[in-house]
Amino acid sequence: MGKALIIGAGGVGNVVVHKCCQNPDVFEEILIASRTKSKCDALKEKLDGGRTRIQTAQVNADDAKEVARLINDFRPDVVINVALPYQDLAIMDACLETGVHYLDTANYEPPETAKFEYKWQWAYHDRFKEKGITAVLGCGFDPGVTGVFCAYALKHYFDEIHYIDILDANAGDHGYPFATNFNPEINIREVTAKGRYYEDGQWKETEPLSVKRVYDFPQIGPKNIYLLYHEELESLAKNVPGIKRIRFWMTFSDSYLTHLKVLENVGMTSIKPILFEGKEIIPLQFLKAVLPDPASLGPRTKGKTNIGCIMQGVKDGKPVKYYVYNVCDHQEAYAEVGSQAISYTTGVPAMIGAMMIIKGIWKKPGVYNVEEFDPDPFMEELNKQGLPWYEDFAPALLD
Amino acid sequence: MGKALIIGAGGVGNVVVHKCCQNPDVFEEILIASRTKSKCDALKEKLDGGRTRIQTAQVNADDAKEVARLINDFRPDVVINVALPYQDLAIMDACLETGVHYLDTANYEPPETAKFEYKWQWAYHDRFKEKGITAVLGCGFDPGVTGVFCAYALKHYFDEIHYIDILDANAGDHGYPFATNFNPEINIREVTAKGRYYEDGQWKETEPLSVKRVYDFPQIGPKNIYLLYHEELESLAKNVPGIKRIRFWMTFSDSYLTHLKVLENVGMTSIKPILFEGKEIIPLQFLKAVLPDPASLGPRTKGKTNIGCIMQGVKDGKPVKYYVYNVCDHQEAYAEVGSQAISYTTGVPAMIGAMMIIKGIWKKPGVYNVEEFDPDPFMEELNKQGLPWYEDFAPALLD
Repeated sequence: MGKALIIGAGGVGNVVVHKCCQNPDVFEEILIASRTKSKCDALKEKLDGGRTRIQTAQVNADDAKEVARLINDFRPDVVINVALPYQDLAIMDACLETGVHYLDTANYEPPETAKFEYKWQWAYHDRFKEKGITAVLGCGFDPGVTGVFCAYALKHYFDEIHYIDILDANAGDHGYPFATNFNPEINIREVTAKGRYYEDGQWKETEPLSVKRVYDFPQIGPKNIYLLYHEELESLAKNVPGIKRIRFWMTFSDSYLTHLKVLENVGMTSIKPILFEGKEIIPLQFLKAVLPDPASLGPRTKGKTNIGCIMQGVKDGKPVKYYVYNVCDHQEAYAEVGSQAISYTTGVPAMIGAMMIIKGIWKKPGVYNVEEFDPDPFMEELNKQGLPWYEDFAPALLD
Repeated sequence: MGKALIIGAGGVGNVVVHKCCQNPDVFEEILIASRTKSKCDALKEKLDGGRTRIQTAQVNADDAKEVARLINDFRPDVVINVALPYQDLAIMDACLETGVHYLDTANYEPPETAKFEYKWQWAYHDRFKEKGITAVLGCGFDPGVTGVFCAYALKHYFDEIHYIDILDANAGDHGYPFATNFNPEINIREVTAKGRYYEDGQWKETEPLSVKRVYDFPQIGPKNIYLLYHEELESLAKNVPGIKRIRFWMTFSDSYLTHLKVLENVGMTSIKPILFEGKEIIPLQFLKAVLPDPASLGPRTKGKTNIGCIMQGVKDGKPVKYYVYNVCDHQEAYAEVGSQAISYTTGVPAMIGAMMIIKGIWKKPGVYNVEEFDPDPFMEELNKQGLPWYEDFAPALLD
């Protein structure tokens, strides 16, 4: 049926490639491209022999011209961007130049300032629209499936959703005293940033990790959750009509936070270089080198993730409560694709989004977030592609 | 009266120099030598103009020949070694060659293995004896004054001391979330090493920080104390007749230990180099560079130290309990000599020991620990030189 160019061969890229190859009727041909071609070749070697034809290429995704040349050589139906967030705009430029649909899992951030904001990518809307191509932004799990959950709830169970709490629990245990799930730099930045949520038409800031609850997660049990800012809040606050409040919560163990606090205290999370033996070294970069490689966590991680949305609103004038969530098992994910649940829950939705585009189901020239498309076919695929979801119409609520 | 060569111009060296200059009748002339001559010159500049004549020199204290040349040029009565423990043997060799008395504050350690043991220095005994010169080992506070306290107790209050607990409390607060008092490498090694104490004729090992008590220190209040090995245990177990048990305890706050544990967990205290950006870097060395410079703590540190010995034994067949301790105030020490109490309590006894040698009061050819000399004149000087001591004949005991 179609062809996809997958840019990025890290943990998420690995999942996307595996899942594309599990759906060869849709993904007849893929091209895996990354800065390090050997990573792409290793993936091809693992998956060659199925019905999906696999090619690989080296690409510098910071360079829009180079990406455009690659697209013109391969002529994919869609570019699946699972490279670094810094590279989103260059890849969007390449899609514009070549007239190919675009999909990513995390919003653009300027390399210098850590800011989760859609404005840079939303600014491409008119150009994508004119060109007749679709950009799907933030199609991982959160952002991604969390937006689809909201759209699905709105379509079937609510006239208006007033309160949304997005809950992201990771009860995985890798057996190390301390390690970060993916890029520790992003992990640490996420935790040390101020919290932010949307209420009554405005954004409210909270001190880092200052708002805490305990939530008893289905299939996981009670966990400490902390209010954080997360990028889907921005688009959902805009796209969910009648919304009064939307918040994002993530689990962190006491031990994780103690480790992080100490590392911050002593200056090891700082990005300000210090002079060491005549060389400028960024403490956070050195810390990264000392910590276990996130890629090594996969085979060791046990336990599950639970990510979902608790919503309150009205339907036909009556109050409605609704909790929809997925539970993903680290070891099952690893056994299936060789990545644990953090990468799995991001990569599977990216593949499904690309599938929606190739099948012509999600087709709307312009730049859109996932909640702006029809959620039903996506929700159906989640159940088929390894991320089944559960519904609860009487969930415990967060105050 | 005499001349002293002081090798080392760090925090302790600074105190020694100040205190020598406060006693110009004894220390008519001093030579300050260290690897970095500018440090010596800075000390000279601060203290010049008093009755003690000050000279400075550059010296590589690893090189016995170079130290011997320096001694022969200056012809001191005593060498006060407040350089690095790794350099003890080279400096002792130089004293042997030139026939000059020797004093240090910490026992020799081979550079590669962290071992607190007197054997390497005790092996010099016969040669020092033949040469007719005296070596006083470990003449800081602990080791040092703690040994003098034991000798004093034995001389005046006990026929036999059966139990000794040495208690070292530092209630100083530097206002940083985490910093180490002196060389963090030595600090961290001390805490992560197994505990060891002497009981019933044998040495018993304990897991690092596994033995904990709370002790209510005079002038400080209750503190967590942990059983550690400390070098004076070795000589006191040998030199105190009838001893049944001797232990050493040090205070650590929960926060200090949490920080240390985390840094250990993530590998930042490791001395095994890792490859970082093409360069081999030792994590502990990098941590040192990130942490506050120990020298910067002086002006910020408030609070007191309390170091002393609790003893139990018999006199004329009757049981005796005795606690003798010094309390030293960080800010008073800093105001007097520009170093806080940790350096002050080490440097003052080193000066007093050298005074004992120059005055000919401690004169006994060979290599000895402090408890093997007459404690009375030393105890008298402690009161005069800024380290007054207190006695308690009914102290709380440790089980």
